[in-house]
Amino acid sequence: MMIVMKATASDEEVQGVIERVESAGARAHPIYGEELTVIGAIGDLEHTSRLELEGAPGVDRMMPIMKPYKLASAQLKDGARTVLEIGGRKLGGEHFAIIAGPCTVESREQTLTAAHAVAAAGGAMFRGGAYKPRTSPYAFQGLGQEGLRLLQEAKEQTGLPIVTELMDLRDLEPVLEAADVIQIGARNMQNYTLLTEVGRAGTPVLLKRGLSSTLEELLMAAEYVLKEGTEAVMLCERGIRTFEPAYRFTLDLTAVPVLKELSHLPVIVDPSHAAGRRKLVTPLSLAAAAAGADGIIVEVHPEPDEAICDGPQALRADEFATYVELVNAAATVAGKATVDALV
Amino acid sequence: MMIVMKATASDEEVQGVIERVESAGARAHPIYGEELTVIGAIGDLEHTSRLELEGAPGVDRMMPIMKPYKLASAQLKDGARTVLEIGGRKLGGEHFAIIAGPCTVESREQTLTAAHAVAAAGGAMFRGGAYKPRTSPYAFQGLGQEGLRLLQEAKEQTGLPIVTELMDLRDLEPVLEAADVIQIGARNMQNYTLLTEVGRAGTPVLLKRGLSSTLEELLMAAEYVLKEGTEAVMLCERGIRTFEPAYRFTLDLTAVPVLKELSHLPVIVDPSHAAGRRKLVTPLSLAAAAAGADGIIVEVHPEPDEAICDGPQALRADEFATYVELVNAAATVAGKATVDALV
Amino acid sequence: MMIVMKATASDEEVQGVIERVESAGARAHPIYGEELTVIGAIGDLEHTSRLELEGAPGVDRMMPIMKPYKLASAQLKDGARTVLEIGGRKLGGEHFAIIAGPCTVESREQTLTAAHAVAAAGGAMFRGGAYKPRTSPYAFQGLGQEGLRLLQEAKEQTGLPIVTELMDLRDLEPVLEAADVIQIGARNMQNYTLLTEVGRAGTPVLLKRGLSSTLEELLMAAEYVLKEGTEAVMLCERGIRTFEPAYRFTLDLTAVPVLKELSHLPVIVDPSHAAGRRKLVTPLSLAAAAAGADGIIVEVHPEPDEAICDGPQALRADEFATYVELVNAAATVAGKATVDALV
Amino acid sequence: MMIVMKATASDEEVQGVIERVESAGARAHPIYGEELTVIGAIGDLEHTSRLELEGAPGVDRMMPIMKPYKLASAQLKDGARTVLEIGGRKLGGEHFAIIAGPCTVESREQTLTAAHAVAAAGGAMFRGGAYKPRTSPYAFQGLGQEGLRLLQEAKEQTGLPIVTELMDLRDLEPVLEAADVIQIGARNMQNYTLLTEVGRAGTPVLLKRGLSSTLEELLMAAEYVLKEGTEAVMLCERGIRTFEPAYRFTLDLTAVPVLKELSHLPVIVDPSHAAGRRKLVTPLSLAAAAAGADGIIVEVHPEPDEAICDGPQALRADEFATYVELVNAAATVAGKATVDALV
Repeated sequence: MMIVMKATASDEEVQGVIERVESAGARAHPIYGEELTVIGAIGDLEHTSRLELEGAPGVDRMMPIMKPYKLASAQLKDGARTVLEIGGRKLGGEHFAIIAGPCTVESREQTLTAAHAVAAAGGAMFRGGAYKPRTSPYAFQGLGQEGLRLLQEAKEQTGLPIVTELMDLRDLEPVLEAADVIQIGARNMQNYTLLTEVGRAGTPVLLKRGLSSTLEELLMAAEYVLKEGTEAVMLCERGIRTFEPAYRFTLDLTAVPVLKELSHLPVIVDPSHAAGRRKLVTPLSLAAAAAGADGIIVEVHPEPDEAICDGPQALRADEFATYVELVNAAATVAGKATVDALV
Repeated sequence: MMIVMKATASDEEVQGVIERVESAGARAHPIYGEELTVIGAIGDLEHTSRLELEGAPGVDRMMPIMKPYKLASAQLKDGARTVLEIGGRKLGGEHFAIIAGPCTVESREQTLTAAHAVAAAGGAMFRGGAYKPRTSPYAFQGLGQEGLRLLQEAKEQTGLPIVTELMDLRDLEPVLEAADVIQIGARNMQNYTLLTEVGRAGTPVLLKRGLSSTLEELLMAAEYVLKEGTEAVMLCERGIRTFEPAYRFTLDLTAVPVLKELSHLPVIVDPSHAAGRRKLVTPLSLAAAAAGADGIIVEVHPEPDEAICDGPQALRADEFATYVELVNAAATVAGKATVDALV
Repeated sequence: MMIVMKATASDEEVQGVIERVESAGARAHPIYGEELTVIGAIGDLEHTSRLELEGAPGVDRMMPIMKPYKLASAQLKDGARTVLEIGGRKLGGEHFAIIAGPCTVESREQTLTAAHAVAAAGGAMFRGGAYKPRTSPYAFQGLGQEGLRLLQEAKEQTGLPIVTELMDLRDLEPVLEAADVIQIGARNMQNYTLLTEVGRAGTPVLLKRGLSSTLEELLMAAEYVLKEGTEAVMLCERGIRTFEPAYRFTLDLTAVPVLKELSHLPVIVDPSHAAGRRKLVTPLSLAAAAAGADGIIVEVHPEPDEAICDGPQALRADEFATYVELVNAAATVAGKATVDALV
Repeated sequence: MMIVMKATASDEEVQGVIERVESAGARAHPIYGEELTVIGAIGDLEHTSRLELEGAPGVDRMMPIMKPYKLASAQLKDGARTVLEIGGRKLGGEHFAIIAGPCTVESREQTLTAAHAVAAAGGAMFRGGAYKPRTSPYAFQGLGQEGLRLLQEAKEQTGLPIVTELMDLRDLEPVLEAADVIQIGARNMQNYTLLTEVGRAGTPVLLKRGLSSTLEELLMAAEYVLKEGTEAVMLCERGIRTFEPAYRFTLDLTAVPVLKELSHLPVIVDPSHAAGRRKLVTPLSLAAAAAGADGIIVEVHPEPDEAICDGPQALRADEFATYVELVNAAATVAGKATVDALV
């Protein structure tokens, strides 16, 4: 932690800060410049993070030096990448994986048709929502446990691991039973209770970045999960909120290489929600793969025009194989060994 | 709902949209312009909100006409304002109220000292956190039930109603017992499970706007609570996320008059979190009151320099009476009858 | 400047940075922590600003310590406030001033009627655009020199100093002749050519914050003007771009106290453009005055419904006196001596 | 234009709006819903854009139906793409081009070395700044006319067309002489004087999106140029301002497919400024090409560590050939015929 003193700070004020740094168990290193003094506070996170000196006399501002997360940081593994293996499918490192399925589980036929299309095209996992977070209390809220049952049937028929969202801790048991990966949605990224309990459960977690969360906050949210013992966490960029009204969210693909610098965890991209329209999903998916993403999570529906939820942004199941081929080609340019290449 | 067709849409495509509108139970009113066609879909929210036509052939875009909330809307009460009465203190309409107290309940002495200072200065309610949402899993997470007990003691001694945050539904029972107003924090504004259960409990709710939530989303979140039967909801602007790095959040005071136009619910402002520094709290509080806010929720601490959490932004208890006087003067300019005037 | 080294930086890399700092004429102060090394580079702006070490081997990031502006900084005057005196009207320090008039000069009658209303109500200066920056090339671009002539006539009749915008350096001469204050619009805040030439002219400048400019950038833009010798610069907050679609811009009133901390220059607020609607202008003006603004610049029109430009946001001339009274009351709460009090 | 009336609007107010629409030369189509009335105003842009009815009695809001630009719109060419041909290099449609060179022209050797590296690697055009917009008045402002002369020499030696920025109209003549493409920087995107004069000059224009400009504003800025007769305009996404502090700007790659939907003009991407660091430039360039960009403009420097300006984000000249190969591969995945394929 660096403590920048005001230009007008007195010697006593500088001394006061030095004493507080040392009383907190850290070491103080003052640098006396011509115009102002800066005090370095050296010590571990536990000590320096308690230094709430912003209001203190003579202090201009605090500048953190150390990252506030540890288990999620790239340093933890000395630069080595975490590779997740879920139901035999690998994601991370040189492995690229496509997770696909409908926004919401609507019916047995819709679910199974979608799952077979995903399997046939070479998708790695199957996604589908049984519980849906909806902005409006008047909107369809998901099939619940019946939806989970249909996902399990899809898995039995296709062998695809299941990715599904948990919103309410009271649904933890049934979701754990059905899910190979538990998805934490963007609106719950800072629901710390949920993060902690999911971390205790041990099932792999797909953690979506909040609509206006910084990368640091995303990594702190991952830290909540990792701290409880779950090591299998994938980070997911899904679009952030900006001033631009032409699309629902602005997909932030710079997050992909930067998260990979900051953390050993795999980074995937959800292009569907940001785009909001089918026509944009393919270019954004190609861009995400070319930027070095470890995977894509995308919405596919057998009949998007009939979908209860988010139909306009779902890829058509019968065009999905072409999509997978293109996205794999882009991942290859970025240095990934895609499924075919690995076989 | 207005459906704007593409300039290139064929007659068949226009006809197809008209048919889908009518099959959804709404009435279609096409307007044929020289360059393009627009189709008005008239009907109630239930019918028109299901029209997911964005992907449909020939459709350029959908433009909603009706507000997506009802119970929170100003129309519900024909322009009349909701006035909350909580433990004898009124808030809303012509009534202005200051809610104050420490960020976190830390100890018996800190809590009681703060509560007496708030009561003496003319504060209307006492706030304090027993459960704290923390970005870092390594930070202090609150005293929990012991904190709730201290809040109750503060209420017994001062008569001030208690405002405290609920984060985890498993704490609902004890929080209901201690709280006169349940606070839903900004990070939980779209935690729909929490909103629904709190709405069922019937205790008044203070709902903070999410860091990057639109006013419409805030009103939709209020709708979740109102729909379950709780009528006493106050909306709270607490700063949004923008590009400006000079402060933690950008307090959006335009939200005050606009929320009051859109909704009958009282609107309050939390200046402490956006400011992040004590020196900014007074000017922002005056600005909020002058903008027409129905109340302020602010952090006060007997010894901010020793506070476990957010000390730099807490007002000093011994300066609080002066603060209250100034803020009341600003509320008077905005047309509020402040406590003195009402007595 | 603090240079944070990577945790993995070698001794040679640390040494290399130290050498580059010293070869640039600054002094290097390394702090060796347990996990990483930080190097303070001490020296004047000229030396340290040239240290482009971000790409250098072993360097994690650069953290500037010193403000990058000098002439605009509060330190320049040791905390004293600049008070502008323009045509006998004071603005800054304890002086609060209202600048009002139509968005655009449209006709002789409109201009003179507005000017008389502003003068009668106690407005301090008259504003009006002869040249208008318009997003659309198809929109009305202003009356040009004829508009400037009408502004001069308004001044002759009312004695009010004139504030008008300069967009194109080719209009510098005639604008200088008509204007007591030259306005630089938000879209030109980083038009450095314009800033430099206006700074040379010596006429007082009203500098609007760009739609997405940080406070630091605004102060750097002021520095361009100040550097050429013009000392009379007022900074103007006029709303920034955020994700919120309910209003055109989000008025950032936190900027008022923060700019006053950072700079000795007066800070005014334009509530009209952010609001976009008359009904919001009064609450936002009261808020700005209560936040400590040194003045308000606001749009007033004799017949807003007939205005060529921005009619919906213009105050009605016949309601302007009531507005001035309210805004002055709010400024008084914030500690300003308003006109009446000073007389 | 759709005019949404308030739910409380009276019949007279509805009638009043209908009359104003018709008196403006447009046709009014009222739709009477159960809860509110919507009035469609049908006519050309000239007529409907003048309808400033937002303040009018009974009016809730205006919703534009038509795009406010014409010459930049995709409709103008019925979906056909504009292909620019500049000095024999094509850009747009199926043609992908890389524009590269140093941020600033610093010296003869630096310029010529960079230009030869760009030419050798298969770059299509050479970029370099003779006039630099700098946030700080204390920073290096460019070599000026001497810089232009060096760019011309680079062109003579390599045959590469020259892209260089114009900031000040007083430099128009010499810049026109040296430039094959005039660049308008992000900070000047709404400098309408500059846009108009450059449009009159007829030289191809590279127009960068402002830091917080919407796509619609970018297209309106292009309209200013196109309206004066210059047809050769390329749009450039270069990163927007968001809340994320981990990078300088957030590259908005969704803009690429969306601009290509909205406009016939070619769309290129500048990954260097958003990234701010060399390491991020390649992944972002691959992403841009995969998203369907028609070209990339990127910074290359023979010795980035010695660069006066933006060295940390410049690619190294000796690694540039590898970069071009990778980016071309990504463009091929997106369906572009890259140079090799076309030869």
